[in-house]
Amino acid sequence: MDPIRIAVVGLGKIARDQHLPAIAGNGTFSLAATVSPHDHAIEGVPHLASLDALLAEGPAVDAVALCTPPQVRHDLAVAALKRGVHVFLEKPPGATLSEVAALQVRADRVGASLFAAWHARFAAGVAPARAWLAERRIDRVQVTWREDVRVWHPGQAWIWEPGGLGVFDPGINALSIVTHILPRPIFLKAATLTLPENRAAPIAAELHLLDTADAPITVDFDWRQTGPQLWDIIVETDAGTLRLSQGGAVLALPSGTEHGEDVEYAGLYSRFANLIRGGCSDVDTDPLRIVADAFLCGRRLTTQAFHD
Amino acid sequence: MDPIRIAVVGLGKIARDQHLPAIAGNGTFSLAATVSPHDHAIEGVPHLASLDALLAEGPAVDAVALCTPPQVRHDLAVAALKRGVHVFLEKPPGATLSEVAALQVRADRVGASLFAAWHARFAAGVAPARAWLAERRIDRVQVTWREDVRVWHPGQAWIWEPGGLGVFDPGINALSIVTHILPRPIFLKAATLTLPENRAAPIAAELHLLDTADAPITVDFDWRQTGPQLWDIIVETDAGTLRLSQGGAVLALPSGTEHGEDVEYAGLYSRFANLIRGGCSDVDTDPLRIVADAFLCGRRLTTQAFHD
Repeated sequence: MDPIRIAVVGLGKIARDQHLPAIAGNGTFSLAATVSPHDHAIEGVPHLASLDALLAEGPAVDAVALCTPPQVRHDLAVAALKRGVHVFLEKPPGATLSEVAALQVRADRVGASLFAAWHARFAAGVAPARAWLAERRIDRVQVTWREDVRVWHPGQAWIWEPGGLGVFDPGINALSIVTHILPRPIFLKAATLTLPENRAAPIAAELHLLDTADAPITVDFDWRQTGPQLWDIIVETDAGTLRLSQGGAVLALPSGTEHGEDVEYAGLYSRFANLIRGGCSDVDTDPLRIVADAFLCGRRLTTQAFHD
Repeated sequence: MDPIRIAVVGLGKIARDQHLPAIAGNGTFSLAATVSPHDHAIEGVPHLASLDALLAEGPAVDAVALCTPPQVRHDLAVAALKRGVHVFLEKPPGATLSEVAALQVRADRVGASLFAAWHARFAAGVAPARAWLAERRIDRVQVTWREDVRVWHPGQAWIWEPGGLGVFDPGINALSIVTHILPRPIFLKAATLTLPENRAAPIAAELHLLDTADAPITVDFDWRQTGPQLWDIIVETDAGTLRLSQGGAVLALPSGTEHGEDVEYAGLYSRFANLIRGGCSDVDTDPLRIVADAFLCGRRLTTQAFHD
């Protein structure tokens, strides 16, 4: 079968650290081009300044991976889908829920595959956690996602703008895992968002959710963490405690601890290839829906100004 | 067939003005009880202080209409659904999207009917507007929903609290009509929310949406209107202009104007009866999704304090 010719659009940190290596490591894809108004990425690979230029002038592509900030992702996806090009959406899949739903309508209309990628769901401990929890009674869940924004998002102005999500940008990774591993649907009951007085997005958030069997899920997101960085999910069950740490890479069960290697983006591209070959889409907006719900019903607190 | 025994829970303005008369006018229902911690509603009809008391002590009911503020609606709906009682949710159907989705899961599990009611969709002009627009090319849509909050929501503190939606409480009626009459899905591109400095919910909002054929939809919600009150939707098409005014009651087409009588709640209860008899639910969260999207991505402005 011919390889899937793919272009990577947006060449920020995530594209260079994750997408380009994952594509290089997957024989189903061939990197046809990179797209960015800024710098050229890879010797010997065609580079264009815009997606419009790529779609107009070539080289021909079957798929694009959109690694730009979410605020501009929708219009790029529309341009690709109008040509029947398959679309990989980095997380979050859009700036609003309704725009993602509208993309799905367009993708279905042209028969293209749309993939809302949640990389954290492919962390090594997540699939075994989901399998282990499937038969348990869930008593309580605690999510702690505390990192230093200055280390992980230096100078990313867009992340603080409306539509940029603030601390929910990493936090949505936790929500993507929780919605995936728990056996029942979960929903938001209350939220508190803490915003720096000079920013439009929260630097911290506390969420209170329930599952449909009334198990409480408490979520603590904070970007002001110095020292140890915490990306932990603890699930108390009738068979003991499950702990996912390091963002899902390490799984501790009552029977012992497993450390997996990082396979997140390899897993995503394998999944994207299967969607394209199968003529399907995979657009789960549940994690973004919880974030939207937190903005919708959350109580807002103001804290001191944040400067990079 | 035996009548459907229904209780009305929450006896505020909307329950008294609309629900009780609509139930009295529909032979399919019999009013079994009213529920409110405050006053007794109707001579000769059993009255209870809480839904829990009703479900524990009777009289027996087949259905409940929840007319309380949205922040407490979910827990009441869960209590009813746990008994297999059908639930009519006043608009908006909940404080968050995820809690409404979770209610649907519970309703399906017990085989009860769940109805997310959008009364404005039953306004006299809406069905003919939808039929007329089905075959048109949509060029542009303008929604203007400007009313005086002091007249329509006097002293309703909950409406200004987180989860209370502010100006989106009436505005969601417009969104329920627009999402119903336009032939294509619509999605939010940008929003500006204006909040009084002493309130947690917006007093005005401006939304910019598109449909999936790129037609622009501009929305102007404002609660500071004095003088004439405006609830207008104007749709420009290839066959001329459609104007729905007075909240959907009056429809003006190029061929002339129709004035309908108010049949909104009669229509809702007729629909609810059909859902129960047919063993179905009807839970469309598209209008609330646009509101959540506006809170998610909207730019916020602060304006002068609002006092009732």
